[in-house]
Amino acid sequence: MAAAASPSSALQAPWLPWMRRALQLAALGEGRTSPNPLVGAVVLDAAGQLVGEGFHARAGEPHAEVGALAQAGARARGGTVIVTLEPCCHHGRTPPCSEAVIAAGISRVVVAMADPDPRVAGGGIARLRAAGLEVIEGLAEAEALRLNRAFVHRVRSGRPLGILKWAMSLDGRTALPNGQSQWISGAEARAWVHQLRAGCDAVIVGGGTLRADDPLLTSRGRRDPEPIRVVMSRTLDLPPQARLWDTTMAPTLVAHGPEAPQERREAFDRLAAAARDGVQPGAAGREATYPWAEGACTPELLASQSGPQRLELPSCEPAALMEALAARGCNRVLWECGPELAAAALRQGCVQELAAVIAPKLLGGQAARTPLGDLGQESLDQAQPWRELERTNLGSDWLWRLNQS
Amino acid sequence: MAAAASPSSALQAPWLPWMRRALQLAALGEGRTSPNPLVGAVVLDAAGQLVGEGFHARAGEPHAEVGALAQAGARARGGTVIVTLEPCCHHGRTPPCSEAVIAAGISRVVVAMADPDPRVAGGGIARLRAAGLEVIEGLAEAEALRLNRAFVHRVRSGRPLGILKWAMSLDGRTALPNGQSQWISGAEARAWVHQLRAGCDAVIVGGGTLRADDPLLTSRGRRDPEPIRVVMSRTLDLPPQARLWDTTMAPTLVAHGPEAPQERREAFDRLAAAARDGVQPGAAGREATYPWAEGACTPELLASQSGPQRLELPSCEPAALMEALAARGCNRVLWECGPELAAAALRQGCVQELAAVIAPKLLGGQAARTPLGDLGQESLDQAQPWRELERTNLGSDWLWRLNQS
Repeated sequence: MAAAASPSSALQAPWLPWMRRALQLAALGEGRTSPNPLVGAVVLDAAGQLVGEGFHARAGEPHAEVGALAQAGARARGGTVIVTLEPCCHHGRTPPCSEAVIAAGISRVVVAMADPDPRVAGGGIARLRAAGLEVIEGLAEAEALRLNRAFVHRVRSGRPLGILKWAMSLDGRTALPNGQSQWISGAEARAWVHQLRAGCDAVIVGGGTLRADDPLLTSRGRRDPEPIRVVMSRTLDLPPQARLWDTTMAPTLVAHGPEAPQERREAFDRLAAAARDGVQPGAAGREATYPWAEGACTPELLASQSGPQRLELPSCEPAALMEALAARGCNRVLWECGPELAAAALRQGCVQELAAVIAPKLLGGQAARTPLGDLGQESLDQAQPWRELERTNLGSDWLWRLNQS
Repeated sequence: MAAAASPSSALQAPWLPWMRRALQLAALGEGRTSPNPLVGAVVLDAAGQLVGEGFHARAGEPHAEVGALAQAGARARGGTVIVTLEPCCHHGRTPPCSEAVIAAGISRVVVAMADPDPRVAGGGIARLRAAGLEVIEGLAEAEALRLNRAFVHRVRSGRPLGILKWAMSLDGRTALPNGQSQWISGAEARAWVHQLRAGCDAVIVGGGTLRADDPLLTSRGRRDPEPIRVVMSRTLDLPPQARLWDTTMAPTLVAHGPEAPQERREAFDRLAAAARDGVQPGAAGREATYPWAEGACTPELLASQSGPQRLELPSCEPAALMEALAARGCNRVLWECGPELAAAALRQGCVQELAAVIAPKLLGGQAARTPLGDLGQESLDQAQPWRELERTNLGSDWLWRLNQS
């Protein structure tokens, strides 16, 4: 009764359970591989028995295929590699995986998706085929693309994937009319936000949020290292005391534009120097685990480990910040900012996903803060619907995640 | 393994399937029995076979037990009546049901809940027991109370149960900054609102909503008669042309307080007289089906059928309006008003349920309209969580219904 399977799907079907396992393995690196993608790999011997598994755990550490081949050893000869992303063909911090696959005597490689990185972009697959290996492409490609949507977005657009998160009451308020905002949502929702941060490379607030809430902005240890905490401030009107200035737990980056007053820059630099001098002795040991410790952006980020760092952007705009964060290896960033910065991030295309936590409470007050400033829309037709990704309960609160449709 | 059933539950258990059927029957009257409750009844013969079913379809028409007993006829003798509400013992528009049950030779009556109406309040059950009938009380009482929560609320508090409904964007806006608000939600959500109105006895807006939206506020024929459309206006600054002034489809009541200017009252009365004169000939035929045609409030409401009616309240406040609507036989009313009137209704305890339709769109704009004006809360502790009743999709929109916890 079913339509005849296409040659391609007939070829792919036997490998699907293994590819799902490789995708599970890949997901184990969540939040720690940036700027690299999440990758998982499985090695079967010539008889189809599992002989090796691996995943990419951290930038600078071995790629998934290499770990799986090392586990398989000589049993890989004549076998199959099932891998979620095309093996690389370039020398980065590690040698090309395609060469490692060929050297191990593998006969067949099953790949979920091509690597969008222009240094690879099909070159790895071509290298394998040139060496006489059978390559099957596109198995579970949609799942693999979803898993690496942040990496793919960053490679294609030059900006990290942005998630905008807010917690509001059922009547759309993020604070009482008197400004009180802690806590609208409950303990479960706050724990979920810590988990969300653990999947992000940076967490962004504006100067207003820093001044009002003195936030910590960490994943509470769910990610090691913690995401970079970014404050975007046009005026550099920043409090002399703030929890973000203690960078023993997580790095802090203060971004501003050319218009920031010189005296405020100097004041911040003095504050940062004082924070560096006051750094706790144990903190230095954490530097080695920083994900970009071997990456292109090492000097700045290592510096940020021992005091907050200042970054002048070409303009004090979300788009400029996103480009700077992409250059620093961020694949996914979280906007946890006030309404005006959030609206600017949306207007400049810096938000691809929304995460709204809605508490079953009424706060009221036309003057009370709301999630978003002006988006410049003149007609309801311009308000395009977002597509639901997830909807779930967090205690008595409600989480709705959406992305652009 | 299970704990021994209590004598009471052992006594009740055989009747539970029949009580569920009676509750289903009761629900068939939804939206049409006010000021009366929803009631369903089943009659079994002496052998336990179903011989009659009935429900209360409309105020002034026979009560559920009477309909079911009529269907059963002589087969009711020695049988059992299963009824969702205590049979009445007073002469209202119909004779007391307890007498009809006794006259039919029934041996046993199973009742879900006592009638909170002070004219009954256990008197019906006492009358049955005095006549020698076995009475089993409290079977599926929670379901029965839920089904009649509006009736019970009105009897106990002297005010109809209030539902506050709004449609907003994911960022809590009920309009764009430029005021545009039609349509934030989609066709499915709008159809659901028509259904919601069909379950209500009145739909309330403020003068601002009338001026801005010129709404129709009907159930689009899902309820016959349509709910009373109520405009609450402090100033009586009302448009000379409005769809609400045509009362051939549904009655319209304009409520104001003592401060309403005399010249505006006169202007409205002229407008109402003109609307009456322009009434369509066919409209008179609808008066006979009005649910309070035989009730205490007949004169006013019949008048409203042929032109909008004006009502001066002791004060122009939601609480005063609710008392007036309870006196007019309303069990359940729907607040579809703007933020200031909604906030006043909440502050005055005139809202027991919330229905928020949330569209997956972002409208933005600090100046844009939001669901609620100031609630006078100074601390987040004062914002008590509401309890979820229902959460469902309406097309791509989302519906969240809650009540007071």
